[in-house]
Amino acid sequence: MQNIVDQIYREMAARNDRGKVAGYIPQLACVDPNEFGISLIMQDGTKYSAGCANTLFSIQSISKVFTLTIALGKLGDEIWTRVGREPSGDPFNSIVQLEHEAGRPRNPFINAGAIVIADAIMMGNEPKEALAEILQFIRFVADDDTIGIDEKVVKSELLNGSRNASLANFMASFDRLRNPVDKVLGTYFHHCSISMSCEQLAKAGSFLVSNGVNYSTGIQVVPEHRARRINSLMLMCGHYDGSGEFAFRVGLPGKSGVGGGILAIAPGKASIAVWSPGLDSIGNSKLGTEALEMLVQRTGWSIFGH
Amino acid sequence: MQNIVDQIYREMAARNDRGKVAGYIPQLACVDPNEFGISLIMQDGTKYSAGCANTLFSIQSISKVFTLTIALGKLGDEIWTRVGREPSGDPFNSIVQLEHEAGRPRNPFINAGAIVIADAIMMGNEPKEALAEILQFIRFVADDDTIGIDEKVVKSELLNGSRNASLANFMASFDRLRNPVDKVLGTYFHHCSISMSCEQLAKAGSFLVSNGVNYSTGIQVVPEHRARRINSLMLMCGHYDGSGEFAFRVGLPGKSGVGGGILAIAPGKASIAVWSPGLDSIGNSKLGTEALEMLVQRTGWSIFGH
Amino acid sequence: MQNIVDQIYREMAARNDRGKVAGYIPQLACVDPNEFGISLIMQDGTKYSAGCANTLFSIQSISKVFTLTIALGKLGDEIWTRVGREPSGDPFNSIVQLEHEAGRPRNPFINAGAIVIADAIMMGNEPKEALAEILQFIRFVADDDTIGIDEKVVKSELLNGSRNASLANFMASFDRLRNPVDKVLGTYFHHCSISMSCEQLAKAGSFLVSNGVNYSTGIQVVPEHRARRINSLMLMCGHYDGSGEFAFRVGLPGKSGVGGGILAIAPGKASIAVWSPGLDSIGNSKLGTEALEMLVQRTGWSIFGH
Amino acid sequence: MQNIVDQIYREMAARNDRGKVAGYIPQLACVDPNEFGISLIMQDGTKYSAGCANTLFSIQSISKVFTLTIALGKLGDEIWTRVGREPSGDPFNSIVQLEHEAGRPRNPFINAGAIVIADAIMMGNEPKEALAEILQFIRFVADDDTIGIDEKVVKSELLNGSRNASLANFMASFDRLRNPVDKVLGTYFHHCSISMSCEQLAKAGSFLVSNGVNYSTGIQVVPEHRARRINSLMLMCGHYDGSGEFAFRVGLPGKSGVGGGILAIAPGKASIAVWSPGLDSIGNSKLGTEALEMLVQRTGWSIFGH
Repeated sequence: MQNIVDQIYREMAARNDRGKVAGYIPQLACVDPNEFGISLIMQDGTKYSAGCANTLFSIQSISKVFTLTIALGKLGDEIWTRVGREPSGDPFNSIVQLEHEAGRPRNPFINAGAIVIADAIMMGNEPKEALAEILQFIRFVADDDTIGIDEKVVKSELLNGSRNASLANFMASFDRLRNPVDKVLGTYFHHCSISMSCEQLAKAGSFLVSNGVNYSTGIQVVPEHRARRINSLMLMCGHYDGSGEFAFRVGLPGKSGVGGGILAIAPGKASIAVWSPGLDSIGNSKLGTEALEMLVQRTGWSIFGH
Repeated sequence: MQNIVDQIYREMAARNDRGKVAGYIPQLACVDPNEFGISLIMQDGTKYSAGCANTLFSIQSISKVFTLTIALGKLGDEIWTRVGREPSGDPFNSIVQLEHEAGRPRNPFINAGAIVIADAIMMGNEPKEALAEILQFIRFVADDDTIGIDEKVVKSELLNGSRNASLANFMASFDRLRNPVDKVLGTYFHHCSISMSCEQLAKAGSFLVSNGVNYSTGIQVVPEHRARRINSLMLMCGHYDGSGEFAFRVGLPGKSGVGGGILAIAPGKASIAVWSPGLDSIGNSKLGTEALEMLVQRTGWSIFGH
Repeated sequence: MQNIVDQIYREMAARNDRGKVAGYIPQLACVDPNEFGISLIMQDGTKYSAGCANTLFSIQSISKVFTLTIALGKLGDEIWTRVGREPSGDPFNSIVQLEHEAGRPRNPFINAGAIVIADAIMMGNEPKEALAEILQFIRFVADDDTIGIDEKVVKSELLNGSRNASLANFMASFDRLRNPVDKVLGTYFHHCSISMSCEQLAKAGSFLVSNGVNYSTGIQVVPEHRARRINSLMLMCGHYDGSGEFAFRVGLPGKSGVGGGILAIAPGKASIAVWSPGLDSIGNSKLGTEALEMLVQRTGWSIFGH
Repeated sequence: MQNIVDQIYREMAARNDRGKVAGYIPQLACVDPNEFGISLIMQDGTKYSAGCANTLFSIQSISKVFTLTIALGKLGDEIWTRVGREPSGDPFNSIVQLEHEAGRPRNPFINAGAIVIADAIMMGNEPKEALAEILQFIRFVADDDTIGIDEKVVKSELLNGSRNASLANFMASFDRLRNPVDKVLGTYFHHCSISMSCEQLAKAGSFLVSNGVNYSTGIQVVPEHRARRINSLMLMCGHYDGSGEFAFRVGLPGKSGVGGGILAIAPGKASIAVWSPGLDSIGNSKLGTEALEMLVQRTGWSIFGH
């Protein structure tokens, strides 16, 4: 396994076409496009890493996997009255579908849906408290208390958050939010600004590998059926309007972030985190996707074969 | 296993809310909504059935799995220059996306995409020849030479085919079709009118269970990677704008037809065909989906767990 | 007045940027882009012309003014149950709005709306009879029995009519047409292929100048309120998604055709026909629009001033 | 003339179906639906009024006519690089078109367009200064220094302004605004909250009757061509997706507001203000439209006849 991981790292290091680093906030734009990290946690806890697997990066939308998990824990299936579970067929920040469907987002992984999830987690609390809860959960599943928020990224998000402010206000105009728009956005921008390394992220995702059980502690983080459902949502909607492409090429549930990270889950096998800041035209990590494609080809881990 | 299948059958027989039989063509509308059939072919060829598993029904859009397989065999990845592989987020017969994307359908399982696939298979031949090829393939994978086309359904389709004629003509106006519109529609309407039983359909789908290998003959019907990719497309797009819901609740690649059939694939486990003519609001078999949901709960076959 | 018309002709003859001749059917594409004609019929019948004012050209969508007038005569306000009277905000051949609004076109001047009008005029008759009626009306209002259909254009339309066939089939799938799709298209393609000169067209439109009264015969062709309403529809919808621009720059009710003709009405003043085959990006005659803009500047005929 | 106006008032007073008072902000919702006012200022300054022609109401979107006029005065045709001049075919608060067209509004009378106009007027100034300028202009054309802003309506708007905040933030995300979003919204909400009576409004609009000249002072408020163009925009876009209907039934340039007012211009004849708080389904004053329809029938003032 370490051989495979090393090989992937070497191949990726040699690639010239590395995509384009996200430019929409300055704090992300100044990251070095040549960095690449990969980390695997097998179901039994064995770890394989290569490249800058301990470098912190902005997890951005990958945080949506954790906020969804928390919201499901707090509210159960009631959450599905507020957000759908279908791919949208539209870019991550599209507002067209919202107008056609009375302000209800298609799924929890497009921006509008994640904003609703942030609102649902808050339950009248201040952003500070909601964030404490989110961080606590991520630290718990990653078994790592050092994980925190990059305040420079937060500031950058706030200064460049017009599109998300538009989405949140749009939903508010349909009475879809229960907390003030600016507080919901505060929570949302902060949880998107959490920094993690590939190793931390792979560990944090590992409860989704084992039907909801944390490999190291044996604790059932979420019920079995919920782990499966979160995986299904990651597969269907985890890469926006590139989700079909990711399923076709990689064949694993995965969630990408514009920071260049991807968390992918091979049920019963491993939790995998890759990071490379260059993005494809849809906004998913270019080398990250290619690395995962290679990994699945060599391991046969696609959920569509056996 | 037979116990599980029998139990599902008994539960389904007792259901009162059976959905609504497709009304758009008279030939489908006159089917008895109380019928229900289920058939499983395990990877080793063992068969479990219950209900009217030998009753013929109109496979309708399930035929698109087979025409896609044929097109991939004839043209390989070139086919993806003509049709996408993303969920559309729109109903099966939507034309909006086509206008926004210059007449190129999002995936091969919405009507527009399947019409392009029919066109691709024809390669200048007459509908008769294309249909012979399609039937030959289905008979081969089902190992059953009795499978044929229901001409009454064809007539019904032709008389009520305005929406599909609109889609085909729309694509033709963007030069997306290489054969005359009426001939492409002839091929499309005929392959949608193929009649099969649950047992025949489960057998026909079984090459997708075993990485492309036919369980009984050992013949590699399609390469391993292609079987996985067809499964991924079925999961992402097999139930139109209800694909997310099906993935969430069932967790298996599947393709539905308005005739009330669903073909579902549990990789490494079984090919499953269910049939119940009543449809949900999106156009997928209501009891068929519920039966598959129950099956996966009892067997743990979801591809999102292990 | 003749001075103004001559001056316009000379300015237009000197223009280099003449737009692009319609390429979608070969029969239109082979017209000489350097031709330009203009003809005015004043309310009292005085005629002023310049350029090739007697050259025949394909009136195309300008025919929709006459078919609408006929349909209103036969069915009165009932026609508005089948077609709207709002600008669509979309291109002439868009299908998006039809899907969002259950197959009912926004207005009678976009292609879909004009197809519904053709269907309404037929009332169960054959295209031949409907066309006889349309031609008879146009010959009557133009007081010219030589006006006829260019059969070469018809053939060209039929060979390149996929987009219109798509629109007609789409509406048929919502039961919006009462005659067979191919017959409705036959009527539509034929009336779009009527050939007229600027002089004939200006005469044909003159009943809209005088509250519905034909200047030469004194016959009330349509009631006063109907003449005003047809004018309002021409202003709002006569230039597709360039209608706002035309109202802004010219300020007269007008209807354009892809053959390069425009019929414009200055109520109480004159009926004006211009023709120049080069089109702007939206599909309206480039020099035709510029000529009308100049005419209104020199005459002060804008309906928005006094 | 006074007879006609009185008759209209009596007929309107007798109507039972009065539409529905705007409910989106409480301050508008508590207005009495039975009120009706009408006022005409003829080109020579003669005034005819009936009903509560001196009752103040919230002019809301009618203010957009004045802000557009100011913006054209400050920036000239440059303003058209920032906003279009086509009917949108969508409701007043739609965001769909903005996403499809990179954040550029179709015209200055839909909310998004008017927000851009507010931004253009500000030119770096504070809302307070921009509002002073807007009020000064309206007081000047109405020749009435008592016109002011209803601060209760402003507060109500601010508390219920999510949809407009969404539109403004959306455009900001495409760099379409040059002032901070909250300041632009401040300006916009305030100018929509200006209160005027029918008499004041009719006077304020009268420069559009006489090719830009104020009837009483003889001052050329805007150049002749600009008065015509503003009228054309009012006709094409003044009633949102009900503009075609208004042109068809009334046949005058007009601008409506959700407060129930309509300003209509009969070029060369009169400036007319009507007010009745009940709205039709699109958001235009129901009795106001009917009153104008009746007025035009009796006076023959439609711009589409003569």
